[in-house]
Amino acid sequence: MTDASPLLVNRPQVPTGAPVVGIVGGGQLARMCAGPATELGLGVVVLAESTDAAAAQVFPQAPLGRADDLEALRELARVCDVVTFDHEHVPADVLAVLQDEGVALHPAPDALLHAQDKVVMRRALSEAGLPVPRWAEVTSTAALEEFAAGEWPVVLKTPRGGYDGKGVMLVDGPADLERAAAWFDRAEGAALLAEQAVAFRRELAVMVARTPSGEVRSWPVVHTVQEQGICTRVEAPASEVDRALADDVRRTAEQLAEQLGVTGVMAVEVFETGAPTEEDRGWVVNELAMRPHNSGHWTQDGSTTDQFEQHLRAVLDMPLGETAPRSTWTVMANVLGGAAEDLHAASRRVMAGDAAARIHLYGKEVRPGRKVGHVTVCGDDLDDLRRRAETARALLEGTDEGETA
Amino acid sequence: MTDASPLLVNRPQVPTGAPVVGIVGGGQLARMCAGPATELGLGVVVLAESTDAAAAQVFPQAPLGRADDLEALRELARVCDVVTFDHEHVPADVLAVLQDEGVALHPAPDALLHAQDKVVMRRALSEAGLPVPRWAEVTSTAALEEFAAGEWPVVLKTPRGGYDGKGVMLVDGPADLERAAAWFDRAEGAALLAEQAVAFRRELAVMVARTPSGEVRSWPVVHTVQEQGICTRVEAPASEVDRALADDVRRTAEQLAEQLGVTGVMAVEVFETGAPTEEDRGWVVNELAMRPHNSGHWTQDGSTTDQFEQHLRAVLDMPLGETAPRSTWTVMANVLGGAAEDLHAASRRVMAGDAAARIHLYGKEVRPGRKVGHVTVCGDDLDDLRRRAETARALLEGTDEGETA
Repeated sequence: MTDASPLLVNRPQVPTGAPVVGIVGGGQLARMCAGPATELGLGVVVLAESTDAAAAQVFPQAPLGRADDLEALRELARVCDVVTFDHEHVPADVLAVLQDEGVALHPAPDALLHAQDKVVMRRALSEAGLPVPRWAEVTSTAALEEFAAGEWPVVLKTPRGGYDGKGVMLVDGPADLERAAAWFDRAEGAALLAEQAVAFRRELAVMVARTPSGEVRSWPVVHTVQEQGICTRVEAPASEVDRALADDVRRTAEQLAEQLGVTGVMAVEVFETGAPTEEDRGWVVNELAMRPHNSGHWTQDGSTTDQFEQHLRAVLDMPLGETAPRSTWTVMANVLGGAAEDLHAASRRVMAGDAAARIHLYGKEVRPGRKVGHVTVCGDDLDDLRRRAETARALLEGTDEGETA
Repeated sequence: MTDASPLLVNRPQVPTGAPVVGIVGGGQLARMCAGPATELGLGVVVLAESTDAAAAQVFPQAPLGRADDLEALRELARVCDVVTFDHEHVPADVLAVLQDEGVALHPAPDALLHAQDKVVMRRALSEAGLPVPRWAEVTSTAALEEFAAGEWPVVLKTPRGGYDGKGVMLVDGPADLERAAAWFDRAEGAALLAEQAVAFRRELAVMVARTPSGEVRSWPVVHTVQEQGICTRVEAPASEVDRALADDVRRTAEQLAEQLGVTGVMAVEVFETGAPTEEDRGWVVNELAMRPHNSGHWTQDGSTTDQFEQHLRAVLDMPLGETAPRSTWTVMANVLGGAAEDLHAASRRVMAGDAAARIHLYGKEVRPGRKVGHVTVCGDDLDDLRRRAETARALLEGTDEGETA
């Protein structure tokens, strides 16, 4: 439905009749929609932060604009059938205006808010009776100490804007309260989220997709291996997981997608705390994300339908695709910016050593610690896949192979 | 390596350091390189026939230009590391100039000629001792009759420019010679290719990839089901095929890629004539194509590495990817333009009925008989896959399901 727009000067037009999805944000999540959109013949217009943004490199229609610029979003909406998001950073007031003007936002602002604001999320999950850590809104160190009631450590979170360990502080005990005080000062009276630190065995995640018509499909529960708050590896499905627990997590995520009215894909990150009992389901929800998510990158190579295609289908209210795994195991390793500045030279080394390794690069300049790509391997031998994924990662990060196991 | 070029005005630039592949021709074969190029972080610049060409819709860098315009090809080469082809229609003299000027053409003109000129192909295969139908160059009906020597039918082909049954005439006997005479008139003295019609059981094909460094990998031999000279369905691997015959075809294709110096992927289409014996290998070569090919579309969903990614890797001299099938069987059905004018509405019907059907659309306007997409299904039950592929095809073509089996 695109027609002439100042945003799209000198850009080829998508074919008449093709559904067109607008994506706010030009990161790697938008970028990885390119393959599925091409194959399904869908139009995509990306509102990108810069001409060299990850997604702006691969979509012909990638006008520049800020995610908080109402006019830019209006113009995007005008040339698209639906609008969705690469990230959660569109202000709620901007979304409210667009919704009032009849823009088809997926997920809708009411649903998205649960991924934008951790307090809203905690409240909704508590009300729904889902397992969550003990939590409270706190505005001072005194309130934080009262919340802890002697049970340290406590996790202090800024309700909005955090990611990959940013916006999260582990408060080990009263000696840490001075450090916490600086966060309360910065919050200028706004409440922070305090949560009882959860003693967990490991972190699991599940991706679920839901359409406006109400069709829901989820992928198997995966194990997200974390180092210092950053996911380094995903194993799909999670190995040695209690079957009842995995079923419970997956079913709960599907129900939650319905309860919150999610449209598109949602990631539910959970802490596995132990074997389920009658009193304790054995897990608590950690975070929600309402967009394609790092914990779902394995689906590109490991599932019949990947999360990027599923997200496009979901926001366009198309029937959802099969989510069954294509291999016994899939292991995805994130590639962070490291000593290897030339990812293309490194890719050749990975390919030379492992013809079945699936390399995914985001077109980003290498900077230390920045997520610049991932690599996936599929097969029957989980230990072998872990070794191969780590070998590929080490080559792409420019570290010695032996140092990364 | 792209820099400012009048071809690329107002187009985003590919990131510095990314290898860049130029593709001459903006058809669906170029288009389907978009997903793999995105994931591997490769740059692609397509020299497209029109702004709405299949590939021009999906690549940010898709300057307009004709495949026989030396200046346009020079400019393309200037902004790319290597140049490859969506089709075989670049004139040999244009290619010769580019090669002389040092442009990295893959495949090189000497190799490509075997896919451009059927007489050159027949001569090379005969000299290499490969099984081919009895053939001759003929310039008159008298020569054609002499070639036939009473053994009709004979196939008359224009050596260059034919595809999908075009440029091919079945001459059933002396009564058809008048019809053949018109072809000789049109050829204005140039030789046509006469071939003994081969009594074959079915048509098989194999895709092989070769890098400039000499690495060679092939996919399994497939069965290409044909109707009226057009491939309607591909079954991978070919069912009920003699194992020795399939191995022979595959090994021969790999050797041929070496002998001809192919760089990129090549399709070898063969007629299966019977069980192999000491005197008869049981097959003859029908055609060659030096580019991704319809018989390899199944690899997008059915193989670890698809033909489009493999072609990009091969022309950039990157190590090749694993070609093992991911499922026991993969069935790919071509979608021709039919009664269903709205392919997106039809796609929804396919998705609603078969969540695991993989739909691939080329962004082309629907015209009767035009290839506008394909659909692929993978699994363990070949009969079930055939039924599902035909059901999906019928929906996308707008025919009754029952009429297409």
